[in-house]
Amino acid sequence: MKNFTFYNPVRVHFGKGQVTNLKEELKDYNKILVTYGGGSIKKNGVYDDVMKNLKGKEVFELSGITPNPRTDKVYEGIKICKENDIDFILAVGGGSTLDCSKAIAMGAKTNEDFWDYFFEEKNKPTDAIKLGTVITMAGTGSEMDGSCVISNIERKKKYGYGHRLLYPVFSIIDPTYTYSLPKYQLISGTCDMFSHIMEEYFSEPDYENTTDNISESLMKTVIDSIRVALKNPKDYQARSNLMWVSTLAINGLTATGKSSDWLSHKLEHTLSAYFDVTHGMGLAVVHPNYLKFVYKNHLEKFRSFAINVWNINPEGKTDEELALESIVALQNFFKEIGAPTTLRELDIPKDKIKEMAENTAAYKTSYSDLSTSDIETIYNNAY
Amino acid sequence: MKNFTFYNPVRVHFGKGQVTNLKEELKDYNKILVTYGGGSIKKNGVYDDVMKNLKGKEVFELSGITPNPRTDKVYEGIKICKENDIDFILAVGGGSTLDCSKAIAMGAKTNEDFWDYFFEEKNKPTDAIKLGTVITMAGTGSEMDGSCVISNIERKKKYGYGHRLLYPVFSIIDPTYTYSLPKYQLISGTCDMFSHIMEEYFSEPDYENTTDNISESLMKTVIDSIRVALKNPKDYQARSNLMWVSTLAINGLTATGKSSDWLSHKLEHTLSAYFDVTHGMGLAVVHPNYLKFVYKNHLEKFRSFAINVWNINPEGKTDEELALESIVALQNFFKEIGAPTTLRELDIPKDKIKEMAENTAAYKTSYSDLSTSDIETIYNNAY
Repeated sequence: MKNFTFYNPVRVHFGKGQVTNLKEELKDYNKILVTYGGGSIKKNGVYDDVMKNLKGKEVFELSGITPNPRTDKVYEGIKICKENDIDFILAVGGGSTLDCSKAIAMGAKTNEDFWDYFFEEKNKPTDAIKLGTVITMAGTGSEMDGSCVISNIERKKKYGYGHRLLYPVFSIIDPTYTYSLPKYQLISGTCDMFSHIMEEYFSEPDYENTTDNISESLMKTVIDSIRVALKNPKDYQARSNLMWVSTLAINGLTATGKSSDWLSHKLEHTLSAYFDVTHGMGLAVVHPNYLKFVYKNHLEKFRSFAINVWNINPEGKTDEELALESIVALQNFFKEIGAPTTLRELDIPKDKIKEMAENTAAYKTSYSDLSTSDIETIYNNAY
Repeated sequence: MKNFTFYNPVRVHFGKGQVTNLKEELKDYNKILVTYGGGSIKKNGVYDDVMKNLKGKEVFELSGITPNPRTDKVYEGIKICKENDIDFILAVGGGSTLDCSKAIAMGAKTNEDFWDYFFEEKNKPTDAIKLGTVITMAGTGSEMDGSCVISNIERKKKYGYGHRLLYPVFSIIDPTYTYSLPKYQLISGTCDMFSHIMEEYFSEPDYENTTDNISESLMKTVIDSIRVALKNPKDYQARSNLMWVSTLAINGLTATGKSSDWLSHKLEHTLSAYFDVTHGMGLAVVHPNYLKFVYKNHLEKFRSFAINVWNINPEGKTDEELALESIVALQNFFKEIGAPTTLRELDIPKDKIKEMAENTAAYKTSYSDLSTSDIETIYNNAY
């Protein structure tokens, strides 16, 4: 195990009806900015649930936050916060709404441009507006981490930023809030959480460690649960599993003692920045292709992946055969649940691959050291 | 999954050499009470490591904290804190030192008697001295929870008490600090952490949930790692696994969504209160016998335990046979690593069983509703 510091102060209220905790959690705050996306929360009752518990507060709203949240929406939120002296941001929605809200929370406490100062120059915030969340989708895990990812469309950049001030004070995770989620988002979120687990799992050190064993158990839980949730969207147990795994997959647990490579996310962020690809769907395409590119130096780990996650019988197979079979099993799983597995399916023009590869800020990881030409190869293999 | 709130603000610094974090962690504190046990930390270098990082502070000491820490030591610590206006307690040692220190931390901030007011009457503290830990043993997991267990020998009581004010601010977990641990404590700590996992695992709801899958992965990690650590006490990976599993087994993770029965701990606490039995060793005796008493109503769960934890081949076996085989496997595992499996081995006189049963404060759990006579039966079966 590598040395690590684990710290995660988010208070999670998990389960049906937990939205009533808002009253106690917000008792010391008065001017609340409620942020949300396209308005689905007004149709499924979540908006009403939240507002009922904000009675007596001065409530402001920022709506229309899109997937792959953009700088313009962050600027809009910062303006509302500054003009109205907002003392708490309540993000209600999926990972995009949460990420956008985190960027607003720190951007509102500085006179610097949030994108240049934090995302480009990597300065650290000294203050941020306190933030809580009511998450309505399983996938990003943004409800229990201190990170956000924002897209700058003009500059074709999709960057992540993390700081301890960005941890939500609390998060309400009610699995019933995902019952009405469009199937597309259920699938995309599932690919996202699965990819999060693999980003840590496929990083060194490789063997006999607590964290990898936990990761394998989480992956198996996802495989079983999404199959149930696709058949019966109102299966509470399956929805609960997907939500809790999604949270655990990024709250630091699966990173403990690991190198944490996150290279597939880099490869996907370029797709999103160029073509507004849905994050989870992009990952379903690039992650298996990334693994096909690096597996040869980590055969024993892929052996474990094959046997423990995919129940592949190892008898009579070489480690290389087992490794490839495990990656095919992963691709077949993504296909089975309805995710794309090629860039073609994402409508990405082949002649953009070279430019995208050049524009991907890769770095040396414990599993790989990709050149621009390697990235081009991975994208081409994924076509 | 049952509804739950998860909150754990402890900052964990895990790995070799992490003791140097003390400087940064304690920069705002000046009068430090260092608490420890029988003095082993002076032989293995931990004491020196700690003191080196406390230079410039006013340091007080409370030593001689015993296993099953007792009220008298807590009173002694409270006196030192009050007389010297201690502003931080640094507990250096195993779970007993940490538990005793937590009781001191809250007892020092009240004029009430800590035992009567908190442990007996269950009043809540409004303040506590801040506390950090340098843990030197894997087992109790006290380094990442807000609980402590104290023995009142006069009253033959061993009670637990938990409150959010008792969470350590930070914990230093350095696996190399366990290298010189006596084998007896390694074994006892391992039984303790294994029992912690089972207390949650064998509680409802039973099936297809994230938490049980994680618990199975943790139990498998313990089984593999203790075998390595017994052969080679300086195997860093095995020691790391035992330390990290021990921490995760009680930091709330394995309780998420579960009923959390903890009945075996009740049965063991009586043994410790009567005969000063080492906690982990007492658990190795009572836990399998408790499971033998309750398994019949939870056959499917024991089936999972048999197959996923003990790799028992289910072919041709009834669920009842599988369940019993899994409990025997558990007992054999405890025997194999050198733990006792009968009360006789703990030198407990058989004629005390009736009195102990009457003095055990059992309660209804999701798996059981034990009468005094049931408890007597379990103790007798364990003889």
